[in-house]
Amino acid sequence: MKHSPICPWLILLMIQSLPVWSDEGMWLFNDPPRQLLRERHQFDPSAEWLEHLQLSSVRFNSGGSGSLVSEDGLILSNHHVGADALHKFGDATHDYLRDGFYARRPEEEKRCLDLELNVLMSIENVTDRVNAAVKPGLSAEEAFAARRAVMAAIEKESLERTGWRSDVVTLYHGGQYHLYRYKKYTDVRLVFAPEQQIAFFGGDPDNFEYPRFNLDICLFRAYENGKPAKIRHYLKWSAGGPRENELVFVSGNPGRTSRLLTVSELTDLRDRQFPYVLSRLHRLEVLLSAYSARSEENARRAKDLLFGVENGRKAREGMFACLQDPRFIEAKKTAEQQSRNALRAQPEFRDHASAWDQIDAAQQIIAREGLRHALLESGHGFNSTLFGIARTLLRGAEEKNKSNGERLREYRDSNRESLEFELFSEEPLYDDLETLKLADSLSWLSSQLGADHSLVRQVLNGISPRERAFELVRQTRVKDVAFRRQLWQGDAAAVSAARDPMIELARLADEQARSVRKTLETQEEIKRQAYGRIVQARFALEKGQFYPDATFTLRLAFGAVKGYTQEKQSIPFQTTFQGLFERSNEHQGKPPFDLPPRWLAKKSSIDLTTPFNFVSTADIIGGNSGSPVVNRQGEFVGIIFDGNIQSLVLDFAYTDQQARAVSVHSQAILHALRKVYEATPLADELESGRAAWTAQGR
Amino acid sequence: MKHSPICPWLILLMIQSLPVWSDEGMWLFNDPPRQLLRERHQFDPSAEWLEHLQLSSVRFNSGGSGSLVSEDGLILSNHHVGADALHKFGDATHDYLRDGFYARRPEEEKRCLDLELNVLMSIENVTDRVNAAVKPGLSAEEAFAARRAVMAAIEKESLERTGWRSDVVTLYHGGQYHLYRYKKYTDVRLVFAPEQQIAFFGGDPDNFEYPRFNLDICLFRAYENGKPAKIRHYLKWSAGGPRENELVFVSGNPGRTSRLLTVSELTDLRDRQFPYVLSRLHRLEVLLSAYSARSEENARRAKDLLFGVENGRKAREGMFACLQDPRFIEAKKTAEQQSRNALRAQPEFRDHASAWDQIDAAQQIIAREGLRHALLESGHGFNSTLFGIARTLLRGAEEKNKSNGERLREYRDSNRESLEFELFSEEPLYDDLETLKLADSLSWLSSQLGADHSLVRQVLNGISPRERAFELVRQTRVKDVAFRRQLWQGDAAAVSAARDPMIELARLADEQARSVRKTLETQEEIKRQAYGRIVQARFALEKGQFYPDATFTLRLAFGAVKGYTQEKQSIPFQTTFQGLFERSNEHQGKPPFDLPPRWLAKKSSIDLTTPFNFVSTADIIGGNSGSPVVNRQGEFVGIIFDGNIQSLVLDFAYTDQQARAVSVHSQAILHALRKVYEATPLADELESGRAAWTAQGR
Repeated sequence: MKHSPICPWLILLMIQSLPVWSDEGMWLFNDPPRQLLRERHQFDPSAEWLEHLQLSSVRFNSGGSGSLVSEDGLILSNHHVGADALHKFGDATHDYLRDGFYARRPEEEKRCLDLELNVLMSIENVTDRVNAAVKPGLSAEEAFAARRAVMAAIEKESLERTGWRSDVVTLYHGGQYHLYRYKKYTDVRLVFAPEQQIAFFGGDPDNFEYPRFNLDICLFRAYENGKPAKIRHYLKWSAGGPRENELVFVSGNPGRTSRLLTVSELTDLRDRQFPYVLSRLHRLEVLLSAYSARSEENARRAKDLLFGVENGRKAREGMFACLQDPRFIEAKKTAEQQSRNALRAQPEFRDHASAWDQIDAAQQIIAREGLRHALLESGHGFNSTLFGIARTLLRGAEEKNKSNGERLREYRDSNRESLEFELFSEEPLYDDLETLKLADSLSWLSSQLGADHSLVRQVLNGISPRERAFELVRQTRVKDVAFRRQLWQGDAAAVSAARDPMIELARLADEQARSVRKTLETQEEIKRQAYGRIVQARFALEKGQFYPDATFTLRLAFGAVKGYTQEKQSIPFQTTFQGLFERSNEHQGKPPFDLPPRWLAKKSSIDLTTPFNFVSTADIIGGNSGSPVVNRQGEFVGIIFDGNIQSLVLDFAYTDQQARAVSVHSQAILHALRKVYEATPLADELESGRAAWTAQGR
Repeated sequence: MKHSPICPWLILLMIQSLPVWSDEGMWLFNDPPRQLLRERHQFDPSAEWLEHLQLSSVRFNSGGSGSLVSEDGLILSNHHVGADALHKFGDATHDYLRDGFYARRPEEEKRCLDLELNVLMSIENVTDRVNAAVKPGLSAEEAFAARRAVMAAIEKESLERTGWRSDVVTLYHGGQYHLYRYKKYTDVRLVFAPEQQIAFFGGDPDNFEYPRFNLDICLFRAYENGKPAKIRHYLKWSAGGPRENELVFVSGNPGRTSRLLTVSELTDLRDRQFPYVLSRLHRLEVLLSAYSARSEENARRAKDLLFGVENGRKAREGMFACLQDPRFIEAKKTAEQQSRNALRAQPEFRDHASAWDQIDAAQQIIAREGLRHALLESGHGFNSTLFGIARTLLRGAEEKNKSNGERLREYRDSNRESLEFELFSEEPLYDDLETLKLADSLSWLSSQLGADHSLVRQVLNGISPRERAFELVRQTRVKDVAFRRQLWQGDAAAVSAARDPMIELARLADEQARSVRKTLETQEEIKRQAYGRIVQARFALEKGQFYPDATFTLRLAFGAVKGYTQEKQSIPFQTTFQGLFERSNEHQGKPPFDLPPRWLAKKSSIDLTTPFNFVSTADIIGGNSGSPVVNRQGEFVGIIFDGNIQSLVLDFAYTDQQARAVSVHSQAILHALRKVYEATPLADELESGRAAWTAQGR
């Protein structure tokens, strides 16, 4: 509680029915906020400007964003986005996540085990085709099936025609459907990562805080056919970086926001979903912290997982504070009532006002079934990577016999390659950690459903959660990738014949898991149709543009590089390396405020006045991590890595009073690479846009 | 998960209907296990032997045990039992809890702020009088009131007659009522504490583990009339300590066990109470850990609280593992059925078998109301020491007008002194920590009841949990002890007139809190009556003795000093100082395996072969911390400070397969005092039983 209580969202809201007039918005690249940019910032992006930025942006399918920064396929993201890949390289004697990595020569670049990157090539609005397939008069269940089928068909056609990964994305919670086509990179190699100490300096205490001092970067290179990819669209480097008050843009993949949700959905989030999720995160944080404290090797094994849990917990606590503020829900209620009244006042939309009631009714069913869905279908009751693999094998064999459109969505033809890429990952798995997580989640399952629940009894099979987990992890053969490949090629009979205990566990829960999934999908279909009507009416009635909630697809945000005032103190727009050393000293250099030995040794070579991190009013959220920040010229001036604590409310509503996106400054990256890491070729590649070995005609 | 799954309770059980034939039991001093000791250990304690041990034993009302160890009032307990007192001495520049303390001269001994110690002087069975007051035909509510009234009357009479603190203790869940009379010490001074690093070496990872290397001791001195108390009964020191396989005794105050509970009570523990408590502990652990990580001063402020939370979490996880093992409940069901059948087979007890049904029915109501009770009456929704004070002031003024027997039990006349001692404590309270806890618990209250619950809305008063907590803590005057004294002397009108916001918050919740408390008390009365019948029948039908569940009152346990086998490895009965240094080296001396500088500096003076910790089969549980371990001669050979992880099931059933009590060896204490702390006078006092200044006639 560094901050006294604040209430940043009081001044905002009304977002549901008023046009946007601030640096708000996670905009679609095929519907950019031209008027807003013109009127607020006198900026008019050309089609080429937008296309270049879009094609230079990268989605990390492990959960994050990045950008292409050289013609030789160099890709910049955050250390904490790369952490998943770094972690998977590690073993008992190598801890790249902690210690960093630098490939001085191309041959040393390390191929990631299961990292898929996507570059968005085109967007096509397919709303009419998707909705046309859902004939009037269908039941919700039939409508869901029809919609799933047409989406799978569109994706398959597109993949076959273009060769690009093709995903139909549901926008505005069902208001629109757009087909996103991606160029995929699956041969991605690690080039450089700093030590976690400097990437995540200040650890959990400083996470979501500002002023900040983090070199949260990681460099990869995309390969094609075994060679560095040749790239046309990449970001030019701005050696100077951003100036105070300058307009900047963020191009990345915000994961999820809840700004368009109805009051009934928000109260369900507040009274059911957040308490459940937080409870589970607290439990996992304690579990993994205790495990990590036992030995350094344990700490290494659990580090990436634990970071994710801590980060998620802190983020959700901030969001939850907004939901629990009575004023927030009251304001939402008022806004919703205004919207409904506005629709009722228009004869052609009078009936659309009932859409809110339909959403309410659907949400009540979702709330009733939500716990079972989380435990059985989302797998909170079986928290083990091995369980996930086992279930994919089980379901894969069953789905295989169905037509493309009838399958569970993740088994559609167009997704097969990505699914297999993940399924056959050589990611190292640790029996002790898998047992720990599985035992804990079996105990959670039993606590949540009650130990006398028939499924719980079957799952435990008469022994304790810990013994059962121990036995399952020890005995399952899905640890072996060759075994996975073999079963994946076989049919359901072959999977049964294997008698693998983890697969049999998945089978035990699968009837109930599929059933509760179907219930929720049906209710989601009802909500989609309702949102379709609300959004249709809003587009017709409102003058201003409005953007959809985030969906982990590419969006454009913008804002000014700008400090703020907190408890009467003026918080500057940027920090420096000087500040880093000062912050470390404040805490006597004790973890997590310790600096890597290299930084201490090189201190005299560092220009301490170099800008390090900066803040802007751009509208971001989790998933934007690693997004490039560019100026009007489309040059790279920084990379998003966090939001401050006041920005956590952005899940629900935008505010620029104190909420800020936090970035690493482009100058800091170059300076650190040159002066601390002696990575001159890499710094040169960023500045020149081409690798030294390309320049030398290698 | 250092240990592979084990199932220590399979070999045990059947405890409910079979006589005890092992080192089992937390026996009453007025009903010691004579036959068992004679037959198993050929030992027959004399009345004098028992009386001496009883009168040398001390209860720490902050939660723990201890013993008198010199005629000059020296009292030995655990560091972690003394932690509460040590913590309260601290400020931003003194951290006695971390750094330790040693009063080289009597004048330097530091008076504890609110530590009350009790020495049990006598026990009287008052079952008949208590039950006689509950006339046949009373409703459960009336019966509860009658029982409360007679207990208060007995206690008041006893206090007035003897001057001793007098508590009627409910044993066997209502099977018996005994009057315990205590000599009270409220002027207790700190004499010595080692650094927390050595007292709790290995921290949370090694907590509840063995082999172990902890100097978990703390020395206090009881004063009377401003002078060291003159003591007749204190333990003689055994310089040699225990031998392997030797019979030893533990005299202390086990807090709570659940061995006699019915299946319906156990399943409620399993499916409702444990999940709730663990969820809350996980949440608090994350909250306090995150707060502590922000600065050293935060860490100091929260250290004692955080230790309690971590310790409670790890203990409960171990117990919960037992409850979640399907075999445990199955075995309990079988045993319960056998007991019922046995009663039904006896004409005079045929009707008694219905007692289980009455307990089941009562437990269902308790389960339904349990959450509101926890939040409102136990105060989980208002987790702040300041709230507790405010409520005591509010209720105190209201209860004052009632007769002694009609008051909420803690306000009975005989408890007034102890209540005031706590209420007027000068314990330092920190606004930031109080705000943190209160904000978190208001959020918890809102999550658990739903934010639209009318009481939640009233409590939050239109603002967020964090803002509300901030405002309450900032504005309340109950921080001021003089203000507390003033209101305590006044009446309800004076309390109202003060318009203190924290008191008004307590008032807001009090009608519902009192009402749910009444509901639970009524159901507890029904259970007491039912247990009364079960216990009466068992005493009549069974040949062997049986002991009541633990109630934080003095009990006698016994067992052999003995190692065990774990994963085919033989675990020795004792460790040495050598092992301490080795364990620290295994972890490169990193926290929590770091050693205090003094231990490193003095290593060459230490005889590394000195025994450090040892284990025994004595039957202990939380609350036994600090209990003396004595040999057949009644000499002090060690001090209990923990149980191993396998002992956590002792909450539900005894086993001596692997479960062990862990103690500090008497040799280790003397050796450390002499060689590491240069506390020769103190070591001499332990060995000779008198202080140097007494010996010198000072």
